[in-house]
Amino acid sequence: MRILGIDPGYGIVGYGILEKQGNRLNYVTHGAIATGKQEQFENRLDIIYQELRRIISEYKPDLIAVESLYFYKNVKTAISVGEARGVILLAIKHSNVPFVEFTPHQVKLTITGYGRANKGQVQKVMKMLLKLDEIPKPDDAADALAIAWSAAVTYRDTNKKL
Amino acid sequence: MRILGIDPGYGIVGYGILEKQGNRLNYVTHGAIATGKQEQFENRLDIIYQELRRIISEYKPDLIAVESLYFYKNVKTAISVGEARGVILLAIKHSNVPFVEFTPHQVKLTITGYGRANKGQVQKVMKMLLKLDEIPKPDDAADALAIAWSAAVTYRDTNKKL
Repeated sequence: MRILGIDPGYGIVGYGILEKQGNRLNYVTHGAIATGKQEQFENRLDIIYQELRRIISEYKPDLIAVESLYFYKNVKTAISVGEARGVILLAIKHSNVPFVEFTPHQVKLTITGYGRANKGQVQKVMKMLLKLDEIPKPDDAADALAIAWSAAVTYRDTNKKL
Repeated sequence: MRILGIDPGYGIVGYGILEKQGNRLNYVTHGAIATGKQEQFENRLDIIYQELRRIISEYKPDLIAVESLYFYKNVKTAISVGEARGVILLAIKHSNVPFVEFTPHQVKLTITGYGRANKGQVQKVMKMLLKLDEIPKPDDAADALAIAWSAAVTYRDTNKKL
């Protein structure tokens, strides 16, 4: 079973893919969809949509996990990230892959056992769990792997379709 | 020249269409894309995307005007409306129609000459300007006609591609 984790954004969308074999979770790949500031906003949304559909089509995940947005100091930023996330959800819907949502708190809790862990702590645990030589870059991709891990672990624990 | 105005939302997307003939602006139609609470959120986004593409394909607007989001008390609501707006911008991009954005303030100022006019005042002026028998319903569609009107008037005043 293959799980794609997604960390939403409009400048960078992080993604990370894990393969679950029995009780093991193996690293497959990670990366980021980056959209340039010089592009018009609707073009940035379209790049995210097209690239995500390509990644889904290439890696054929069985489950997609997307981070929920829950808090932004700046409402303008919240709206822009929301716009990108809407397009991400549409790309998933158009690809016919089931998806689940995790809050940052749930991800931190699942990976480190502590819901208020900082980004660095989550990344170090992920590096260890996935037996990687380095912490995945950019941060958004590392976060996406943590989201995929959370979905995989939850799926195993409940052993039923989420 | 035909102008489609859109008032974004995830429960209701209002739309209104005007036809500009010389210096006259004629009413064509108005309506709303409504998505039910019982639908999963990704399905609501897809309904908005598909319906909007259908409306654009049916009425073939030359220009689309979308209201900008700028302020919400509740960040969760801002994110959800942002998600719907992202899908609306993607549908416009995929339909290859040029679009412009107007803030609520700009729309009120254009219609009534007063940027802090209330919804009722804008609707009354719109009813008069478009020579309609009644105020268009729902409010979201009346707002969408006001957005289309603002775009049409701005287009005329500048007489250049926005």
